[in-house]
Amino acid sequence: MENKTNDFNKVMDFIIQIDGLKRVFRQTKIVGGERFENDAEHSWHISVMAYALGEFFDGAADVSRAVKMLLIHDVVELYAGDTYCYNIEANKDKYERELASAKKVFGLLPKDIAEEFMSLWLEFDEEETPDAIFASIMDKIQPLILNYQNKGESWLLNGISKSQVLGRIGVALEKGPEPLRDYITEIIEKSVQKGYLADK
Amino acid sequence: MENKTNDFNKVMDFIIQIDGLKRVFRQTKIVGGERFENDAEHSWHISVMAYALGEFFDGAADVSRAVKMLLIHDVVELYAGDTYCYNIEANKDKYERELASAKKVFGLLPKDIAEEFMSLWLEFDEEETPDAIFASIMDKIQPLILNYQNKGESWLLNGISKSQVLGRIGVALEKGPEPLRDYITEIIEKSVQKGYLADK
Repeated sequence: MENKTNDFNKVMDFIIQIDGLKRVFRQTKIVGGERFENDAEHSWHISVMAYALGEFFDGAADVSRAVKMLLIHDVVELYAGDTYCYNIEANKDKYERELASAKKVFGLLPKDIAEEFMSLWLEFDEEETPDAIFASIMDKIQPLILNYQNKGESWLLNGISKSQVLGRIGVALEKGPEPLRDYITEIIEKSVQKGYLADK
Repeated sequence: MENKTNDFNKVMDFIIQIDGLKRVFRQTKIVGGERFENDAEHSWHISVMAYALGEFFDGAADVSRAVKMLLIHDVVELYAGDTYCYNIEANKDKYERELASAKKVFGLLPKDIAEEFMSLWLEFDEEETPDAIFASIMDKIQPLILNYQNKGESWLLNGISKSQVLGRIGVALEKGPEPLRDYITEIIEKSVQKGYLADK
């Protein structure tokens, strides 16, 4: 029992620490555009998206397992901060910074849960298994949807071009279902037409 | 294919609309206390809690299914707003307001997903099945944790007493595992000692 109480208290400490994700802000604004979105909100949004869009993927992934990944994938930003996907310089040491953060934050947990979360995050980060690919598609299309709703504000702010977005979203265009591919292609074309995205 | 595209676009509309939960504020503040927490952040936090605390419940609930409930349980507040759990007057018509909101927001989705989400929300709201009880415990202990971290600020603001919190948290004290019951009892006792909660 003492061990159980000890483990329980470790989980509680983790739960309190990760509240800090509500203060880690991303480059994308919430719909309406009045402020930037934080990691906690983003993780919730893409998890609901996974459950709502899952059936269009015809069993290609275990949606619940992917949701578990999505819920914890940004926890590593607690000490590493958000790294803007189009910032080439900041992305050079992103993995090392996030790995160090992952060890620190998951290390708060009892060993078995820590190992499970670490392994799920590594799997997500590698983007190779069907569940990680599905999860990654959710993670990458959500900012596209928000940016389009906000008339490309954060793209324009950072001078982002169509080819950069296509590069970023590649996995969804290669491996996503047809209605999703059509939707993305249409949004990107419209964004260029409306001047939200540079046409290069 | 046309139906599939049509259904896909319905899901996309739902995804955009529920972004509004990032603007529905609760009565609890985030750890540190600088601002109130919103529904999106809260839903993420309790979902991670469910995965981290699940094993202490020794298989009493299907954690993934409970997480699905937790992710969507506050979507009904999109049009109904947050109802403070200790506001007796506002709670009188809470169910009717949330049911109307649920029909409207889940109604944006294709029929099969709409029915699944509606049924999960109703199950959560009734708090009778093992999954709904587990989910409800997560939903109810999270504000307790945040309030304690914030020196009872939102309890003091609303003049909340120990007996009100005990009434609210009853399900966790009756049906939660021993380390959780001990943790809650200790937090409440300390809150009274420190003057965060009125002793009545």
